[in-house]
Amino acid sequence: MVYDSPSEIRELIRRGDLLRPTCGLALGYTQANLVILPKESSFDFFLFCQRNPKPCPILEVLEPGKYQPALSAPTADIRVDVPLYRVYQNGELISEERDITKYWSSELVSFLLGCSFTFEAALIKAGISLRHIDEGKNVTVYVTNIETIPAGIFSGPLVVTMRPIPTAKVVRAIQITSRFPGVHGAPVHIGEPEKIGITNLARPDYGDAVEIKDNEVPVFWACGVTPQAVALKSKPPLMITHSPGYMFITDLSDEDLSVL
Amino acid sequence: MVYDSPSEIRELIRRGDLLRPTCGLALGYTQANLVILPKESSFDFFLFCQRNPKPCPILEVLEPGKYQPALSAPTADIRVDVPLYRVYQNGELISEERDITKYWSSELVSFLLGCSFTFEAALIKAGISLRHIDEGKNVTVYVTNIETIPAGIFSGPLVVTMRPIPTAKVVRAIQITSRFPGVHGAPVHIGEPEKIGITNLARPDYGDAVEIKDNEVPVFWACGVTPQAVALKSKPPLMITHSPGYMFITDLSDEDLSVL
Repeated sequence: MVYDSPSEIRELIRRGDLLRPTCGLALGYTQANLVILPKESSFDFFLFCQRNPKPCPILEVLEPGKYQPALSAPTADIRVDVPLYRVYQNGELISEERDITKYWSSELVSFLLGCSFTFEAALIKAGISLRHIDEGKNVTVYVTNIETIPAGIFSGPLVVTMRPIPTAKVVRAIQITSRFPGVHGAPVHIGEPEKIGITNLARPDYGDAVEIKDNEVPVFWACGVTPQAVALKSKPPLMITHSPGYMFITDLSDEDLSVL
Repeated sequence: MVYDSPSEIRELIRRGDLLRPTCGLALGYTQANLVILPKESSFDFFLFCQRNPKPCPILEVLEPGKYQPALSAPTADIRVDVPLYRVYQNGELISEERDITKYWSSELVSFLLGCSFTFEAALIKAGISLRHIDEGKNVTVYVTNIETIPAGIFSGPLVVTMRPIPTAKVVRAIQITSRFPGVHGAPVHIGEPEKIGITNLARPDYGDAVEIKDNEVPVFWACGVTPQAVALKSKPPLMITHSPGYMFITDLSDEDLSVL
């Protein structure tokens, strides 16, 4: 069964009829990372995202208390339209929820940030297959020794995803992902993992390891885990995010986000 | 006498030895619009800029009370390094100043926004001459009937600049300015001024009118007057900007702002 429209899929999620990771749903439409923070830290977090657009590409920021993303999904309700949420208090995960209405208040500010599904679709369309997808694994994620640009109370290391790319296709992969700065964009590093503080490719910090073949180069892109990790480090009284892989599906088409 | 380095020029400005519009100074370095607002309205204004990146391309936002732009000009002091400022109270211009230190407080948030000088330099380098520059005039500015995307307390019409471009060079002009989304980027409209609410090209809302020849098309770009006009409409208790043409000179090179 294929559901094409983002609003139909969100409706199923809202009714509780679709509790699964959103990868592969609403193909061609942009999925988003969700970070919800109290108003008092939202200016600093906004600033952090603006200064670090590669790990934190802003799709939409909602005014305090607003839960309908007027620009990217006007009929949605971000309190109930994500299949699974994580709720943190003072930096500690306290529960996973399918509905965060009971936590809602006029003091909360929601950030929707681009996710790599968009540029992965573009890579696959261009004939560059991605091993973690072929093997049904989670994307490989490492914490680097590259510092993000701090903003107010927020600071921390850049987190990256890694995808093995055939040497002959590296330039093309850069060109393709450069068209999508709104969803992490061009890579931050190519080859030589030790140069960015990654000592053992076989032991990722998150996600699953994948083989890198002789004719392939590990290519690293900024990862949306970065803003979550940075925000958690500040131990906000309340912070709500999507659960990994359970993204918010917007009405934006992937091509809406392309430049040139 | 030619001063090449932005910091040398800012030093002269700071000493009071260079009270002139900054057009033509520090060629190749990015100049910026300055908007300073009280903390309580800064989140909404930040949101307005994020939602309207063509008229309001953010170069840097400073934390409340900070006056040194750590990313775009770390040795600068934005309270004294602009040749001429405008100070508004409750939406009314109350004075022009060469130094705004006496108005400063920890409650003020400074926004540096891209200005069209950067893409004009790129157009000229590509052999597309600009009439207002050739004739020593101010760029032609119109208020359109295109509404910006509102954010919090901020809303209002898009303001545009117009430059006559030879028909044969319109595509090239679009390509060149598309490379600089951080300084207004691609045009918002080409030809047919009445379609965006401009009824008489000979009577601009700001700046000077220029002739449009038979082989030329009027091309419209989003203008940095937009955020100032929108901010003033909200009548903030205090708002400080640069005076028109007296910009803040950053250490960023124009090419730092290019994509692809």
